[in-house]
Amino acid sequence: MFRPEIKVIDCTVRDGGLMNKWQFDGKFVRQVYDALTEAGVDYMEIGYISSESAFSRDEVGPWRFCAEDDIQEIISGTEKKIKLSAMADIGRVDHDDIPPSSESSLDMIRVACYVHQIDTAIDLAHHCLDKGYEATINLMAVSTVGLRELEEGLDDLAKSRVPVIYLVDSFGAFYSEDIETLAKKYMESLPGKTIGIHSHNNQQLAFANTISAIISGINYLDATLYGIGRGAGNCPLELLISFLKNPKFKVRPLVKAIEEQILPWEKKISWGYYVPYMITGTMNQHPRTAMAHMESKNRDQLIEYYDQMTSTT
Amino acid sequence: MFRPEIKVIDCTVRDGGLMNKWQFDGKFVRQVYDALTEAGVDYMEIGYISSESAFSRDEVGPWRFCAEDDIQEIISGTEKKIKLSAMADIGRVDHDDIPPSSESSLDMIRVACYVHQIDTAIDLAHHCLDKGYEATINLMAVSTVGLRELEEGLDDLAKSRVPVIYLVDSFGAFYSEDIETLAKKYMESLPGKTIGIHSHNNQQLAFANTISAIISGINYLDATLYGIGRGAGNCPLELLISFLKNPKFKVRPLVKAIEEQILPWEKKISWGYYVPYMITGTMNQHPRTAMAHMESKNRDQLIEYYDQMTSTT
Repeated sequence: MFRPEIKVIDCTVRDGGLMNKWQFDGKFVRQVYDALTEAGVDYMEIGYISSESAFSRDEVGPWRFCAEDDIQEIISGTEKKIKLSAMADIGRVDHDDIPPSSESSLDMIRVACYVHQIDTAIDLAHHCLDKGYEATINLMAVSTVGLRELEEGLDDLAKSRVPVIYLVDSFGAFYSEDIETLAKKYMESLPGKTIGIHSHNNQQLAFANTISAIISGINYLDATLYGIGRGAGNCPLELLISFLKNPKFKVRPLVKAIEEQILPWEKKISWGYYVPYMITGTMNQHPRTAMAHMESKNRDQLIEYYDQMTSTT
Repeated sequence: MFRPEIKVIDCTVRDGGLMNKWQFDGKFVRQVYDALTEAGVDYMEIGYISSESAFSRDEVGPWRFCAEDDIQEIISGTEKKIKLSAMADIGRVDHDDIPPSSESSLDMIRVACYVHQIDTAIDLAHHCLDKGYEATINLMAVSTVGLRELEEGLDDLAKSRVPVIYLVDSFGAFYSEDIETLAKKYMESLPGKTIGIHSHNNQQLAFANTISAIISGINYLDATLYGIGRGAGNCPLELLISFLKNPKFKVRPLVKAIEEQILPWEKKISWGYYVPYMITGTMNQHPRTAMAHMESKNRDQLIEYYDQMTSTT
């Protein structure tokens, strides 16, 4: 599936960091950066841009902030061929925390928001555009948004100057038919804008849903190395790159980075298809209780978790 | 997706056994049998039916043979509410090894064959029908079959009395578009017959491809508990049952069986999404070299395996 408009955004450090509080060392981030560059990936989302006051550096690693000094430690001495992105969470970053793009190595800021935060997100994304960045709005947890509210939100986004709007399956609850239906809705409601997809793998459908998105005309595609990401994780980048069959993309550097940097983390943290994540996915729920269950000593006690989640009392 | 014609066939013991030489103990098989029955699954494929001379009982467990005595040890004392199936491999079972269905607890025999074995498979499947069983032919590795050969094979199958023909993605190489294209081809070429799907998970598409198959009109659906099966494994039964939303199906007994019987095996054998299986899947190759790599002490040396597989010399 070769379509020149397609852009691939790697979220390994940003979404993977949700599983280890961004405790990736410099070597990890540098090797991911090199591998993505060599593989021809378009964007590397290197973390979140946050106020220093929103988190303590004692608790979270540098990629919760994406300070320019930390970025420089990764990219200095390289010929930067990949665009860098950071995600901004509503309420965790102030306008003043965002430097002018001339003072930053970041190329794009993606504003993540829930449907009731769309106005605030548009304001922040416009601010990023005005400071010289590319900007997107990533509307999360759409699987829980009612039709009227979605239509109103999309109308507001249509009127904005934000050029890229993401369809985000935060809970891994969507089947490919949902993606097709929503892609159509987004494209009809957002004429002239580019649509993106960010999927989660609770039902082993993150890659399949990304393919459905491509077929439906979605052009910004999120993925991570070996699917690392919150809970069940994301669309595996190596599968997506292999599928796209664009000669500019290469799989081998990704396999190497998985071997050297991702597999060691796989022995320490548990993302991917596990029954608790499957349960929240099929129930269209946030994965937080599943993540807590996976962290507990009872992680293999599946039926206890199932009964807890399906209890009607 | 509620369609009364849909039948779900669990292959946990049969396909999972390819990973441990069918060394499941009686307690495992009995609990799977009970769980599938309670979950409302239509068929349990309990193993292969083979000549005693084809394998040594010192090397493989009882479910490589499916002797009636062994089946009785599982089902005796139960009210049998689920149909039992066994798979027959061409060349590993003689007509005389198959008892009349009146002397067997098996309800269905599925004949697995490659495209050049179709005539032999039809002969064996007719023999099973004549002995009173339901029968299917499972045409393996279709991803490697050329169009002319496929059309000839389907023509032969169309003329047979075998009522169910399977589309088998042995190598986990298909995308959903392949499934749609082939489902259409099978249905046009095999008027009046039922089509089945058996998928592998090398590209994390086993469940997605099973959904595509359902949408395309395929009615016999193979799956296994937690996806246990050769190499990358199969479509996870718990996901499929959850998707089907037929009130006759229940997920809870499956979660319980996964906790009590499948997770202990997961600590001993490695099925599921691993990079070596992904590599054979994307290359449309048999997983045997990936399985050997996964068994070796070099299993995490991914780039070595990748280079070996992609070497053009």
